[in-house]
Parts: sequence; structure tokens; C-alpha cells
Amino acid sequence: MTRDLRPLFAPESVAIVGASGDPRKWGNWLAGRALRGEHRRTVYLINRGGGEILGRRALRSLRELDGPVELVIVTVPEAALELAVDDALAAGAKAIVVISAGTDGAGRDAALGTVVREAGAVLVGPNCLGVFDAEAELELASNDLPSGSVALISQSGNLALEIALLAQEAGLGFSRFLSLGNQADVTAAEIIETLAAHDGTEAIALYIEDFRDGRAFARATASAEAAGKPVVLLTTSGGEAAARALRSHTGALVSDTAAIDAACAAAGIERVSSPRQLIDVVQGLIRSPTLRGRRLAIMGDGGGHGGIAASLAAAAGLEVPELSLGTVAALREHLPDTATCTNPVDLAGGGEQDIVNFERTARTLLGCGEVDAVLLTGYFGGYGEYSDVFTDPEVTTATALGEVAASAQRPLYAQTMYAGSPAADALRRGGVPVYRAVEHATDALARLAARASRQPQGVPALPAPATPVSDWGYDGARTMMAAAGVRFVGQRTVGSLAAAQVAAAQIGYPVALKALGRLHKSDAGGVRLDLAGPEALAAAFTNMAGSLKPEAYSVEAMAPLSDGVELLIGSRWDARFGPVALVGLGGVYTEVLHDVVVALGPVTMSLAEKMLRSLRSFPLLDGVRGGPVLDTAAAAAALASLSGLAGAHPEIAELEINPLLVLPEGAFGLDARIVPADTDPRRDRGLPVHR
Amino acid sequence: MTRDLRPLFAPESVAIVGASGDPRKWGNWLAGRALRGEHRRTVYLINRGGGEILGRRALRSLRELDGPVELVIVTVPEAALELAVDDALAAGAKAIVVISAGTDGAGRDAALGTVVREAGAVLVGPNCLGVFDAEAELELASNDLPSGSVALISQSGNLALEIALLAQEAGLGFSRFLSLGNQADVTAAEIIETLAAHDGTEAIALYIEDFRDGRAFARATASAEAAGKPVVLLTTSGGEAAARALRSHTGALVSDTAAIDAACAAAGIERVSSPRQLIDVVQGLIRSPTLRGRRLAIMGDGGGHGGIAASLAAAAGLEVPELSLGTVAALREHLPDTATCTNPVDLAGGGEQDIVNFERTARTLLGCGEVDAVLLTGYFGGYGEYSDVFTDPEVTTATALGEVAASAQRPLYAQTMYAGSPAADALRRGGVPVYRAVEHATDALARLAARASRQPQGVPALPAPATPVSDWGYDGARTMMAAAGVRFVGQRTVGSLAAAQVAAAQIGYPVALKALGRLHKSDAGGVRLDLAGPEALAAAFTNMAGSLKPEAYSVEAMAPLSDGVELLIGSRWDARFGPVALVGLGGVYTEVLHDVVVALGPVTMSLAEKMLRSLRSFPLLDGVRGGPVLDTAAAAAALASLSGLAGAHPEIAELEINPLLVLPEGAFGLDARIVPADTDPRRDRGLPVHR
Repeated sequence: MTRDLRPLFAPESVAIVGASGDPRKWGNWLAGRALRGEHRRTVYLINRGGGEILGRRALRSLRELDGPVELVIVTVPEAALELAVDDALAAGAKAIVVISAGTDGAGRDAALGTVVREAGAVLVGPNCLGVFDAEAELELASNDLPSGSVALISQSGNLALEIALLAQEAGLGFSRFLSLGNQADVTAAEIIETLAAHDGTEAIALYIEDFRDGRAFARATASAEAAGKPVVLLTTSGGEAAARALRSHTGALVSDTAAIDAACAAAGIERVSSPRQLIDVVQGLIRSPTLRGRRLAIMGDGGGHGGIAASLAAAAGLEVPELSLGTVAALREHLPDTATCTNPVDLAGGGEQDIVNFERTARTLLGCGEVDAVLLTGYFGGYGEYSDVFTDPEVTTATALGEVAASAQRPLYAQTMYAGSPAADALRRGGVPVYRAVEHATDALARLAARASRQPQGVPALPAPATPVSDWGYDGARTMMAAAGVRFVGQRTVGSLAAAQVAAAQIGYPVALKALGRLHKSDAGGVRLDLAGPEALAAAFTNMAGSLKPEAYSVEAMAPLSDGVELLIGSRWDARFGPVALVGLGGVYTEVLHDVVVALGPVTMSLAEKMLRSLRSFPLLDGVRGGPVLDTAAAAAALASLSGLAGAHPEIAELEINPLLVLPEGAFGLDARIVPADTDPRRDRGLPVHR
Repeated sequence: MTRDLRPLFAPESVAIVGASGDPRKWGNWLAGRALRGEHRRTVYLINRGGGEILGRRALRSLRELDGPVELVIVTVPEAALELAVDDALAAGAKAIVVISAGTDGAGRDAALGTVVREAGAVLVGPNCLGVFDAEAELELASNDLPSGSVALISQSGNLALEIALLAQEAGLGFSRFLSLGNQADVTAAEIIETLAAHDGTEAIALYIEDFRDGRAFARATASAEAAGKPVVLLTTSGGEAAARALRSHTGALVSDTAAIDAACAAAGIERVSSPRQLIDVVQGLIRSPTLRGRRLAIMGDGGGHGGIAASLAAAAGLEVPELSLGTVAALREHLPDTATCTNPVDLAGGGEQDIVNFERTARTLLGCGEVDAVLLTGYFGGYGEYSDVFTDPEVTTATALGEVAASAQRPLYAQTMYAGSPAADALRRGGVPVYRAVEHATDALARLAARASRQPQGVPALPAPATPVSDWGYDGARTMMAAAGVRFVGQRTVGSLAAAQVAAAQIGYPVALKALGRLHKSDAGGVRLDLAGPEALAAAFTNMAGSLKPEAYSVEAMAPLSDGVELLIGSRWDARFGPVALVGLGGVYTEVLHDVVVALGPVTMSLAEKMLRSLRSFPLLDGVRGGPVLDTAAAAAALASLSGLAGAHPEIAELEINPLLVLPEGAFGLDARIVPADTDPRRDRGLPVHR
């Protein structure tokens, strides 16, 4: 099943179709970089005009080659695209990278992909920026890339460039780079699978617009994580404008933010929102020892920086604990009297007096067992600014700081206002992630601390499809959910007041009355609660009949609302990722508070319970301020049942129970709805997101 | 009242006491920089060893001067501090800046301040970094500072340095800089007052640890804002570790985050959490035309950047609206067919083809009337990287972009991965704020859009103190709050079951029963609701008496909880800022959701209503999903009354009503408590904060 991608990353020969002598053209930049690899492979430059390019004789066509070529880069005018691909296959190409755009859209892309795949070759693009492999000295991109241990896969050339610039500043480089383009054949998932087994790669950085088979993407990234190669994903985070951008850019089938979040949680990968965040997190992941908890010590030579760092750390969810008396005493031993030996530690000029105090302080803090990491903040890196006599000692201390962290097997992070200084470079070389802005350091620490505290949820398999839904109404929804195991309060659907009164007598007063046939019943006054007897029911019925003229009515047992908490549970079918289970605070609180947690469905009972416990508002279910402890297990069971049902019904876009009333014993659906998938899978489903 | 600070910023003569020839010493750096101003003023170098320093003859003491000196900088060993100050005053100094630390703490500082003030001079420090005035060419700090139009006041030398480095990178500089140190005499508020009238200053940047007279600080910053000089405040944002850092650093009396937030809202100033944020916001404030709303157009030459920017903009609270057909057509006129002419606009290589397309696109977007600002994102600035032939046209276009924004009177912001390029510099010179990371641009835009939508709340005066509280119990709290105008449900305090039953009969069943004498009654089972008759009351009473043995009991009318929403209203007395009014969602939601809004008290009825409306959960009061519209005015009146009461009682640390039940008509206190101020004003009061 897995295809051989060696011809793509380490070909024995390469041809640039569309090579050019004009320094303003892609064909020139690519040809120049291809020639740098001539000592590793044969390089052919193809230009239909022939002649000489960059000191080499250019062939007029791939047909002039005297032997086969493994990798062909195509950068020709759009109209000549298919012909160039045909020629490449005829020349024996095993991998074809199409820089040119195929603007006719998905149909033309798909046809190209099929032709190449059926010929036993692989196609990257169209509309991509190139490929790079550090080990193979293959540089087929428009810009120079630093070598290193990060694999980068991107669906945007310019974002890849920005990531590369930021990586270079951070002293990082790339093992492999692939610009995906429109994914007519090779997809992100396929590349990630091969990277999981690639020795030269320590971490995988992704910018993806269209996830294609989202579950395959989740499985591939999960396997990379399992192989010890952490994955960091940059993608857009919802909003109609971002979706417009992606559809125009690569014709992407845009996924709900919630679905992407669910896939990341399933695979255990990190999701970021900007190129800067991506490199910040990658630094922490591949440089320093693994962070195991959220307790942070802060140190610096000046008190203001320590206070700001402590504020930002707390805001990011880290702990900055007080140190034990023993540790304080150990710090005090070598620091001047003016130093603050609590956490944050302020050397208060003690670093200026004797720069080795930084090393001593870091050793004490990393070794004390009271914190999981140390953040050096502020001025360090700048002593050399005052006088050259400080430069060498500062670099020596920076090197020693890296050694201290490595031997303590606990991360040391550094923020310095002199991030380009020789000392900062020495820190990086020694395995210390270095940040220019302190909030970027605390954010990376907080993210990696959170990572340490969780396990990947796993990527669930989908059940076989069940018989499709025939009744999309309220009764149909309740019936199928009840059959799946969700409990509801007693209910009858009726068409007349007389029938309503018979139903209420059977169910027992007080009852609730609902108008059926509207999506948001409570918006329109279509729900009346606590009807104590036949007269109240009659009045409510008459009023509702007059104002709303509903198709039918539901008479329901009145649940003890004040004894419990209302949740929303549901599932939405994402076109790329399939069913996504969600749970949040219900009723009017759903929209007001946006406290929602999602996971790829179907979810197990155990995952459903974890989802509930990760709600911000979980304390409401757990006896906060003397309230009753509610039946979390019953709520989790309802969610697991509902999400299992959803997994078997791809024809349902959304299933929802809102509210699900969770009581001290049991959890009961008080409403239910299902929405059929419409014909345009791109529409924004407006899923609430977990912040 | 206002003192003359001219001798501090523009002295006719200056003496450096502690000048040194050793390039590792402060006395050397200060002396060197002082001498740069010799063409503007007489400079005396003082060293008790005499001799030659930096080519000048050093005096042994200020007593050797033949005439008076206006400004004296003191950087001597701590023990010699008082003597140096005495000498300075004897030499006629009108301003003294003490670099040396006075580590004996506040007492010694205060004594120094008094001596200097009584001599008619001003003292800055001790424990400060110096002073700078661009216009006067006064450079008396340890590092070089770029000249410009930002005034910087800082209580940390190193943070000031970091801010200066970031400012320089952003092409900004300083009109004045003052390092405050321990504020023994000159405080931030006094300096800010003078800056409000300082012609060379366009914006004021602050790093403050101790706000001293917090209301004076708020008034001073409000007056600077009113004078058209926006103020940006960097300070710590709560947390015990940050407080530890500040107490150690400058012995600051640490204020509640909520109190600082309230002061910022009162004065209408911006609060930031890091040096980077500070410069990001200052750029936006002083460079570009005023931002008037939150509608943003995004443009770039590549689709990935547009999507990422749109995501981040939406997450920051900006709108990225679709453009009208007319505007789309106007864009399409000059862009290639492949371009996306919706918002975000993707030139899709149209900038590479003809760089003037950036200018045309920006002109169309800034002039269309459909957006309040334009963000240029991504690659611009980097065309010169490919080939020198692109550099000049790119710089020309950058200059034109600034002109387009200026003439449209709408802000153009730029994010470029090439923030150090000639084109980026040209953008800055043209009044375009330039950011390296796109989230920094969107965050600055979102912040300034929010600023455009609000007015300063104003700094209220405190009422005269009332007769201090004598009864700190529940009855006392209710009685004084009721007298101030807050409405409560019917209630009796009783000591026996018999008395409870009499009270309940008078009030009318159902009733609530509370155990008195505990702070969080509901934690301990000390509240029983909905007691329907004498038997239920007796059972609850007996149970409570057995388990809690309360001092007394409160029998109260049972309020119709399900008809309304429970709020918390209260006031806390901050040692620096005085009474701070707060409102949030009440009951169990207070702690779970942290949805709280604060303001300097006492608040007017109108401000109280604005506070309510700015709660995230305000829709719950406003008829969300068909619920009733509740009596916001009554809730606001209760908050205004409570905060007025608090303002007259400095002996009360906290007043709180939780819950205040807001009904469709009226708002009623269901509980009340007051807490006396304790003797240590530094204790953390754990105020919930508005996020």
C-alpha cells in the first residue's frame, strides 16, 4: 500500500522542465538550486528554446534525453502542463513535481493525478513550490532553506517561506520540505506516514488547508507521534473569511475548526495559529528535555522581568511555586544579599557581578525537584553589549547553562532581549529554546506542559452504515436516540387539546408543552414549562395554537430542572473528518458561554467522561459550592450512545440533544433533533468551539 | 501645586557623582553620555579620588564646585548616599537622580525624599537607571536610547532597555525617559501630568510596579489621554508569584489586577502584558490614522497568509466582511484573473507581476467605505530578496502605500516576514505600523478597534467617610445595604425553632433557612431552600442545628429563582486605588465562569448599567432564546447603591451581595456580607477578574 517516495526526495537524476536564464523567473531559481546537487545526481535543464542556461546546454524537450530521469520538476505555462507530464512519464519519471498551477480546478487536477498514479509514479502539486531533502542535498525550491531536523509540509509557498525564515532565526533547519499544492496525487497523510520512519526527521511541521481523508491524516500524524516525532499543525481556525480565503487559494474543502481540533486531540498533535507559534513550539519540542509538569521557576538579573514573566506564566496556566527553605538557602549561598531567592529568583545584579551566578542558580533550581522547568528571562545575552570583556564569559556561561539542563534532564528555556547575541546562539547550540518575547516562551512552556498531561485519544473506526433515517421529525429523532440507549422523559405527540389533556393525565402533571416543527423552539415562545393542571395546559395550548400554528404538539413530563444541570450533547458530520462528538453546557448557556468540548466520534464511555471533565463548567456537575454531585457517568453514556448512532448515519449532518438534564441519578433528554446533510458539504455549520 | 521639572529634563548644568574611568561601571557609562551634552550644558565629573576621567579633570567632591549645579546624578556606594544628597543640595541642586539603591527599605527612602522636597528640589529614585530628554540632548542612562516621540517611564531598568530595543526595531524613539526607581519623591503621576503638556511627546509608555496614590495616577493618565497623548501601561497581571517579585524588587504595595483594570477603564488608557505588546500598541497609536471600527480588509500576494490573518483577526474580535460587488469589480479591474477579489484579497502573483498592484488594491480597499482598516500581510518586503531589480520598485510602492493610507484617513497595517527590509522601513516612515508576526498586527488592530468603541469611564471622587461599621454580621450588612437603597427579600433573624416558625408564618411559606456565621454558607450545607411548610422547616432546622451549630438562623422569603438570573455585586477596597465595584454572574457560576466586570467606585447608575451590559453573560438578562427580559435597571441601581456605600467605608475591605436575584421587575438581595479591612493591606484578596 505504501508507495516508494525515494525518487521524490533522493532521486538519482532530475530534470527541470521550464528552466530559464532570466533571473526573475522560477525556472531560473530552480535550475540554479538543482545544479548545486550535480555532485549527487545528473541534472537536466529543459527549455523549449534550447540554448545555454547557467553555463549548461539546455535540452529542448524531455524526449531528447538519452536515458530515463527519476524526478521531473515542471514549471511551464499552464497550457503546456499535461504535455509536460506526459513527456515526463514517457521519460521514465518516477516522481513529478508540478510548480505550475492548474487553474481549471479540481477536475483537471484529478485527471493529472490519475494519469501519473496509473503509470506507477507519484505527482506532487500542481501549484506547489518544490521539494527539498537535506541529506540528499536536493534543493528544488524557490528559496534557500537551512538544513536541520524538522520536516516541513506546506500547502502555501509563502507560509513555508515565512516558517523557514523564523526557523533560521531560531537556529533550526529542515530535514525535508515538500510543498503540497493541490494534492492531486500525493497527500499530506502519505508524506507524514513516510516521515514517521525517516531517520533525519525529529519533528514534523505542517501547514494544511485541505485535509482530504481526515481520518487518514489523523492516523498518519498519530503514527508519527507514536514514533517519537512530534507533529505541529498550522491551519486556519474557522470564520467565514478564512474559509473564503482557502476555497479561493486551493479550492479546499474547509473543515470545521471543531473537527480539526478533534482530530488533533485524537492524534495527540499540537495545533497552532501562526508561523511564529509553530516555530516557538517546535523549538521546545526538539531542543530541550521533555517537560513533565507545569511547575516553573523563573530567574533573571533584574526584578521587573521576573514579575512580568510570572504574570504571563500564571495567565498561561503554569504554576510558579514558592521554593522550600532549603532551596532558598542553597540559592542564597552564592548570590549577593540584595538578591531575591524566592521564585521568581532575581539575581539583582548578581549576574553582572559574577556571571557564573547564572549557572549556579540554574543548577540549584533544575536540581531541587520542586519545579519541572526553569525560565531564564530578561537581560542575559546583553552583558557583551556593555563591554567586550563580558562577551567570552557570557558565551561560556551560556554553554554551561545548556549542560546543566541536559544533565538535570529538565528543560531550561530562555527569553532574552538580545536573541541575536553570541550568548543566545550558544544557548541554542546547547539545547536551550530561546525566545525574544517572554510571552512566547511562557506560551510554549504552557502548551508543552499541557501536552505532558494528556494522552492521544486515538482515532476511532467508523461503524458500518445503518439503515438511513426516514423520519427527520422530533418523534423520529427521539425514537432512534432512545433505541440507541439515550433516556428521555415521558412524552406523547398530539394534534389537539383534547389529546394533549389525555396525554398529560397519563404522564402526570406538571407537564411541559412544546410546539413541534421549529428548530429553536424556545426562541419563538414554543416551549411552556411547569403547566400544573388541565387549565394551565389548555391556556398554553390555545395561546400556542394561535400564535405559532404548529404542525403538532409534544406533551412531556416536567423534569426537576433545579435539581440538575442542563448539557448539550451532539454530533456533527464533517466532510473530511466524519462524525465529531461534542458536549457543552446546555440551554441558554450554550450560546452565551461557548463552553464546548469535541472529539472524533464515535467516542467510548471513557472518552465521553473525560470530555465532560474537561469542560470549564464541569464543577457545576461535581458538587461545586455544596451543590449535589450529578450523574456524570449517565451523561457520558448518553454522549457515547449518541455519537455511536451518529457514526452509523453519514446522511445526518447534526444530531443534538439540548438540553440533556443531568440529575443526581440519571441523565434525561428533554429535546432532540436531527438535521439531514445538505448537498453542499462546504456550508459553514457554525459549530461552537471550545476555547 | 505642580512642581517645575525643567531642571530634571533640561538642566543648565549637571554633575555625575561617582563618575568612573572603569568601563565596567555605571559611573563610566553615565559620565560618557553626560559629556555628549557638553555643547548644551556644563558637565562636572565627581570622583572622591579625583584624577582624570574620560579626558576631563574630575573633582573630588561637589564642594569643590565654584558655582551651583542644577542636576546631580548620584551613583555612589550605598553607605555614601545621604552624604551625596546633602552635598548636592548644598551645591544648589534643583533635581537629584539617585542611581544607587537604598536597600534599607521604605523608611530610608522616605527620609531622603523628605529632605530633598523640603529643600525645594526634586528627587528621582533611589534605585533608578537615569533620565533622558531628546530635545535637551540629555542622555543620562546606562544605554543609548533612540530619539523620537514616545515618553517612557519605567520602574525597571532592564524592562526599559527591552522596550527601547523593541522601539528601535520598530523605528520608534523616545522624547523623554525616566527611570522611577523607588519613587521616594517623584512619582509616576507627577511625571505623567507634566508629559500631558509636553510638546515633544506623542504617546506615553509606562512600566509601573507600585501605583502609589492610584486615583492620582488615574487622573494624571486621564488628563494625558484628554490632551491627545495616549497612554500604554505595562504592569504585572496578578498571581502570587508576580506579587512576590514586585515586593522584592521595589517593595511595591501590590494592587489587585482588577483594581488596575478598573483604573485603566476609568482613565481610558491601554493596558498590556509584555514589552512586545507595548511597542505593538504604541506603533498603532502614533503612526497611523485613528482606527474607527472593527471591519478589516486583508490583502496579500498569496492565499495562505490571507487565511491565517483572517482566522487570527476573527479570533481577536475583528470583522473581515465580504466586499460589495462594486468593490470586487474595482479590484478585478487591475488584478490578474487568478486573483481572489473577495476579502481576504489574494493578489495571487499579481504583486509579483506588477508591484504597483499593491498600491492599487490598497487604494480601492481603503477608499471603498466598507472597511475601517486594511492589513497587508505576508510576502511584501521580500521581492528584493529574489533580485535587486525588485528593490527600488518595492520601496517606491511602500512609500505610495503610506500616502494612500494617509489620504484615505484610514489605517493601513502591515505584516511582513521581511520586517527589516528597505520596503518595511519605507512603510514605517510613511506612517504604516509594521509587524513581523501577523497575530501581533491583528491583536494591535483589535485592541485599537475596541478603544475606538468606548469612552473613558472617568475617575470618581470618594464620598466623605461615614460612621464606621459596628455590626459586621449578616444583620448589620443587610441593614446598612438596605439603608443605602438595596432591596432584599423579607427576612427575620432567629435563635430557636419556635421563633423560626413564627417568622416563617409572618413571611409566608415557602421559605429559605440559612445558618449564620459562615462565609460560604452553601459550601457547608448551611442553606436550605423551598421549605414548603412548618414540618419541612422543622426538619431542616433540626438537621442544621445538629450538624453546624450555627450562632443564629435566618428565615427568608423564598424568591422565584427560576424566573430570574443570579448576579454577584460587590466592592473591594484596594490599598492604592480605593473602592473597586464589581458585578458578575452569581451563585455557583461566579467561580466557575469568572465573568466579572470592574470599575473604580463609586459608580453611577449609568456606568453600572454599562458594566452589566459588558458581561459575557449579559444575554441571559436580556431575553436570550425567548427568555424574559430582566430588570437591568434595578440591578444597576443596586450596584450603584452598594458601591456608593463602599466608598464611604474605607474600613470595609469587601462588600458583597451574592446572589442578587434579577427578576423581570426588580432585583433583590438574597444574601449579604461585609468583611473588615485587615491590618496587612498587602494580602491577596483573590478578586475574580474579567477576562
